[in-house]
Amino acid sequence: MSKVDRWLLPEGISELLPDDALQVETLRRRLVDVFQRWGYEYVITPMIEFTDSLLTGSGGDIDLLTFKLTDQLTGKTLGIRADITPQAARMDAHSLKRSGANRLCYAGHVVHTRPQVALGSRTPIQVGVELFGEPGLDADIEVISLLLEVLSLVGMPKQYLDIGHVGVFRALTEAAGFSKEQENTLFLLLQAKAATEIKDWVTTHVREPKLQHWFLELPKLSGSAGVLDRARDVFADAPAEVMVALDELSSIADVVQPRYPDAQLYFDLSELRGYHYHTGIVFGAFSPGVGNAIAKGGRYDHIGEAFGRARPATGFAADLSVICRTLNVETAPPNPGVFAPASTNAAQWQEIQSLREAGERVVSGLSIQDAPYDHQNCDRILIETDTGFQVKAL
Amino acid sequence: MSKVDRWLLPEGISELLPDDALQVETLRRRLVDVFQRWGYEYVITPMIEFTDSLLTGSGGDIDLLTFKLTDQLTGKTLGIRADITPQAARMDAHSLKRSGANRLCYAGHVVHTRPQVALGSRTPIQVGVELFGEPGLDADIEVISLLLEVLSLVGMPKQYLDIGHVGVFRALTEAAGFSKEQENTLFLLLQAKAATEIKDWVTTHVREPKLQHWFLELPKLSGSAGVLDRARDVFADAPAEVMVALDELSSIADVVQPRYPDAQLYFDLSELRGYHYHTGIVFGAFSPGVGNAIAKGGRYDHIGEAFGRARPATGFAADLSVICRTLNVETAPPNPGVFAPASTNAAQWQEIQSLREAGERVVSGLSIQDAPYDHQNCDRILIETDTGFQVKAL
Repeated sequence: MSKVDRWLLPEGISELLPDDALQVETLRRRLVDVFQRWGYEYVITPMIEFTDSLLTGSGGDIDLLTFKLTDQLTGKTLGIRADITPQAARMDAHSLKRSGANRLCYAGHVVHTRPQVALGSRTPIQVGVELFGEPGLDADIEVISLLLEVLSLVGMPKQYLDIGHVGVFRALTEAAGFSKEQENTLFLLLQAKAATEIKDWVTTHVREPKLQHWFLELPKLSGSAGVLDRARDVFADAPAEVMVALDELSSIADVVQPRYPDAQLYFDLSELRGYHYHTGIVFGAFSPGVGNAIAKGGRYDHIGEAFGRARPATGFAADLSVICRTLNVETAPPNPGVFAPASTNAAQWQEIQSLREAGERVVSGLSIQDAPYDHQNCDRILIETDTGFQVKAL
Repeated sequence: MSKVDRWLLPEGISELLPDDALQVETLRRRLVDVFQRWGYEYVITPMIEFTDSLLTGSGGDIDLLTFKLTDQLTGKTLGIRADITPQAARMDAHSLKRSGANRLCYAGHVVHTRPQVALGSRTPIQVGVELFGEPGLDADIEVISLLLEVLSLVGMPKQYLDIGHVGVFRALTEAAGFSKEQENTLFLLLQAKAATEIKDWVTTHVREPKLQHWFLELPKLSGSAGVLDRARDVFADAPAEVMVALDELSSIADVVQPRYPDAQLYFDLSELRGYHYHTGIVFGAFSPGVGNAIAKGGRYDHIGEAFGRARPATGFAADLSVICRTLNVETAPPNPGVFAPASTNAAQWQEIQSLREAGERVVSGLSIQDAPYDHQNCDRILIETDTGFQVKAL
């Protein structure tokens, strides 16, 4: 690289200069504080780990996203964390070994080999919560409530939440006796919302009229909570698991909507976000004009198994920098501060320190700076008068 | 790996469970807040970059510490950041392009291929400041003051600071006309404080009595500020740069000591921490009973050159987790919180939210939990009475 190239950053990798970094830091603190007030304990997971534990239970998507390294100390393969959830699950299953409910939260960089979405970042700042140990719907309701709380807190006037349940599709494919390959094909078509292809595929591969009807109706079942009643009619004699899933979704609507009246709950029975990973309710938060979810989560009850201790789990995660960019998070009112011209006067130093202790930003002048000063964004100046020091407006 | 092995972490790589993570997070916020009050702007640098920019100006030590990766998008070599200072220098030289003083601060994980010290961490949480654009001693005084401020703030009763100046050794080796190899050999002997070997080497390789005397005295010149007067005698007719360096060190003592009367300033003229990288005053902070510096810094005026814009620079960095372990940082008084038994009662939800808005930690019970509850470290419980809700001690 020539001199002028050395400052180039790789595609999808960005630095955050002061204004943006302050927004992210402000949001980070606000979120971690809310998580803590809801009982979630902050943890810090390693940046790198053996891939064997890093990729456990998280499915092949994460494997492809994970940069691999050779450990010079052991020769084993390490990975840079591409997701913090499996690490939190390892902490829950092994390091903490709590028997009851265990609530954890985190905030930190993850690194991806390639952007997950077009023009996306390869170094998201992942922030999230995980609630381990509770198989019941209470836990799903809690994490969905917490996500809505966070979104309203960061200034999202309406909170758009898509909610699905992988149990519906899973029960129907089981009833149809699909092969793994068939299941996967239909799954991909549903995700692509490819109506014509779904119809062709289902009419070709599903013989039984009742099953055909279910699969053809499934992609149409999306909308506000009323769609769940429609689904009850469609799936009236479907496997019991389908009704259980619909009841869970109704309970979410019943409990969560009154808590967050401005939330726009959108139920979508063919939304299977993270199907290979999730086991129950799944959800994603959206912002108008942004194509991809700004936060996503759901239940993933089997992740602890690989660590020798299966524990029910649910949670959500988001990319702090995406939320900042999307919502234009308000930072605290700017504190422009006081400029103190260069001086080795001990009395001035005491004055500066008192101002700082009172919470002021005070920037010392440096000898290179003669008047007119570069005031370093300060709106006031410290001056010495006959009677002592004074802070004057600039 | 078998199931039981999956939770193993690689040597030198650690996770921080709730208590430790809370300490680190508390310290992180406290430090970033102090940095900001001193005018340092928070920035977030990328976790990975092209090695060409990551390793620029930072010398071979960092090269060996940096994990290398192949970018799947470009085929170029990426590195995981092993130090944030060169990234901040790139921001200063290229992204921000400010002409006057520029103060930046940061806090984040770095990753090392191997521990820098025995039993050290390979994933330090680096926190630090950089002050660009000021060639004068004011800048050195400011960053040293800020380091002492931070150390006293995190509860270090006495702040032990070793201060050196690479200009002394550099001027003497130039006067002696050493080859690069000779310079390096003597440098290594001085760092090892190998008195006998230094004597042997100097008497063999340095002919001129005056030069011999200088090099033999150099390792003995360490102690409180008085040692600087002794050095002035020894180097009375040494190159002018030596006297400039001694004057700078004296000024540090004169200005900084009265500001921080509890600081133990220890001057050491053969202390050449980061010699290949630094260009002036260098310093390290120590804690009794800990062999390695808990924070280090100094002047490195040439780093911006490789980015096309040489700018004077000085700063310091520390590992947050080491400081936490060493100083046992006080976290805020624990806020055990209020336990709210499982309920879908909307009135209870409102009560919980009011408590949270008032800053309380409130942990919701979950349906799996019957009485006797696991109170999740709460010291109070929310109960419903005939007249409304009450918080009672547990």
